[in-house]
Amino acid sequence: MTGVHWPAHAHRWPVRVYYEDTDLAGIVYYANYLRFLERGRTEALRSLGIDQGRLKAETGVVFVVTRVALDYRQPAVFDDSLEVLTWVETRGAARVAMRQAVLRDGAVLCDGTVTVACMAPTGRPVRWPDAVRAALDRIAVKG
Amino acid sequence: MTGVHWPAHAHRWPVRVYYEDTDLAGIVYYANYLRFLERGRTEALRSLGIDQGRLKAETGVVFVVTRVALDYRQPAVFDDSLEVLTWVETRGAARVAMRQAVLRDGAVLCDGTVTVACMAPTGRPVRWPDAVRAALDRIAVKG
Amino acid sequence: MTGVHWPAHAHRWPVRVYYEDTDLAGIVYYANYLRFLERGRTEALRSLGIDQGRLKAETGVVFVVTRVALDYRQPAVFDDSLEVLTWVETRGAARVAMRQAVLRDGAVLCDGTVTVACMAPTGRPVRWPDAVRAALDRIAVKG
Amino acid sequence: MTGVHWPAHAHRWPVRVYYEDTDLAGIVYYANYLRFLERGRTEALRSLGIDQGRLKAETGVVFVVTRVALDYRQPAVFDDSLEVLTWVETRGAARVAMRQAVLRDGAVLCDGTVTVACMAPTGRPVRWPDAVRAALDRIAVKG
Repeated sequence: MTGVHWPAHAHRWPVRVYYEDTDLAGIVYYANYLRFLERGRTEALRSLGIDQGRLKAETGVVFVVTRVALDYRQPAVFDDSLEVLTWVETRGAARVAMRQAVLRDGAVLCDGTVTVACMAPTGRPVRWPDAVRAALDRIAVKG
Repeated sequence: MTGVHWPAHAHRWPVRVYYEDTDLAGIVYYANYLRFLERGRTEALRSLGIDQGRLKAETGVVFVVTRVALDYRQPAVFDDSLEVLTWVETRGAARVAMRQAVLRDGAVLCDGTVTVACMAPTGRPVRWPDAVRAALDRIAVKG
Repeated sequence: MTGVHWPAHAHRWPVRVYYEDTDLAGIVYYANYLRFLERGRTEALRSLGIDQGRLKAETGVVFVVTRVALDYRQPAVFDDSLEVLTWVETRGAARVAMRQAVLRDGAVLCDGTVTVACMAPTGRPVRWPDAVRAALDRIAVKG
Repeated sequence: MTGVHWPAHAHRWPVRVYYEDTDLAGIVYYANYLRFLERGRTEALRSLGIDQGRLKAETGVVFVVTRVALDYRQPAVFDDSLEVLTWVETRGAARVAMRQAVLRDGAVLCDGTVTVACMAPTGRPVRWPDAVRAALDRIAVKG
């Protein structure tokens, strides 16, 4: 996939394709890539020391997806051993654009941008807690 | 399907099979029948005037599945127009055994018993609220 | 939602939110909107006389999603009665950009564009069969 | 969980709980345990050298679930690190009863029996291929 590049510090997470992920076309159902991407984001945050459950309990803050833009390039099939790559493209005060890609043997099957906002329990955008902001900056593309 | 009978007052709810429900074998994935059955139970309760959301808000009570026993007899496929039947087999003080069946053109594809308990926010079984008990008895097999 | 308009001939399809659709945040999980959108597209095609199963059996042609771009504006919650709107924005020889929106009481919760390609069994893009092209043009935005 | 025992040679497979698995009650949705169990069965077969994809390609044989009987004892929640145990209770000529349990820190959250049949492409039960029969017997309870 020409034109798809990712930084060396992108987070990588393995995903296996099971029956549950496929549809009658014999390939991974298009909505299920969003499940894979969310596993990648959760594990990227975990690897950076961010515990979403504790964060919510202590500060009330949750992460909400506000935009998804994904290109499906090649289908994944049953038993595929995939890799989800996650890194930060741009980070604002209360929002982050995360680049993500699903790879098989180094080839990009699906890639795009998922925008996540930091929200108070009221549903209002709030600034990232310091620890989260620092963590996100560690998987950000350096300028 | 010899031996599968249901009372005339069983609740009936239509379900269409979409791509999301199928797997690579070209049939409905076995876990997805549980989604169909839950739609049937929710709509059965709704038709009896039970609003689960309000019930939880007002009393804290939630319905929790404690047992599932299902026979898969014939597969459903894409675009099938199914019907979920729901009725009450036996009702205890804090527990109910609901019989459910998924039909296509009158033939049983899947049927079994789903046991649901009435739980307090603490996770402790509690007696059914009066309105729920009365509603369940309206779709119960008469002795 | 300022700026979201849809033609009068957009296809409309009702969707109810069940437990299966929600996540621990108490709202519809972001991937599940893609399931709702696919039901809307399938029903839009069906209403136009296109039977995807027969089409595949007769011509081998399948519809494959190649791009999704979605904005999540407000969350849907349990028991919500939603409406999926579907219409055609632009149609090429082997590809169509479908605009879709999920509404609750007229307010847009989620909207975007899903690009679908017409593929031969080989996975190669092919021209739309005549009947499909004519059907798509019936829910297209008129110039 | 008194009364739940499993043989030392039961297959064990780790499963992490993500947002996708939970529902608005804050716990894993009841149908999703069936997804976890299927991952456990698939990985048990893989660990025994059975490649379901190749088996289907070479012999046309598929494994079809014909019965599920599950007890839900305690709920799993977001971020839980679970373990799926799989072993064979009884094996017939064309059918196997697999015992499975989902554990968290050694406590059983969910357990039961999943019956799987060996089917020809025609949907007719057929004898297990020799390699599969031998593999199943390796995770069977010894008499």
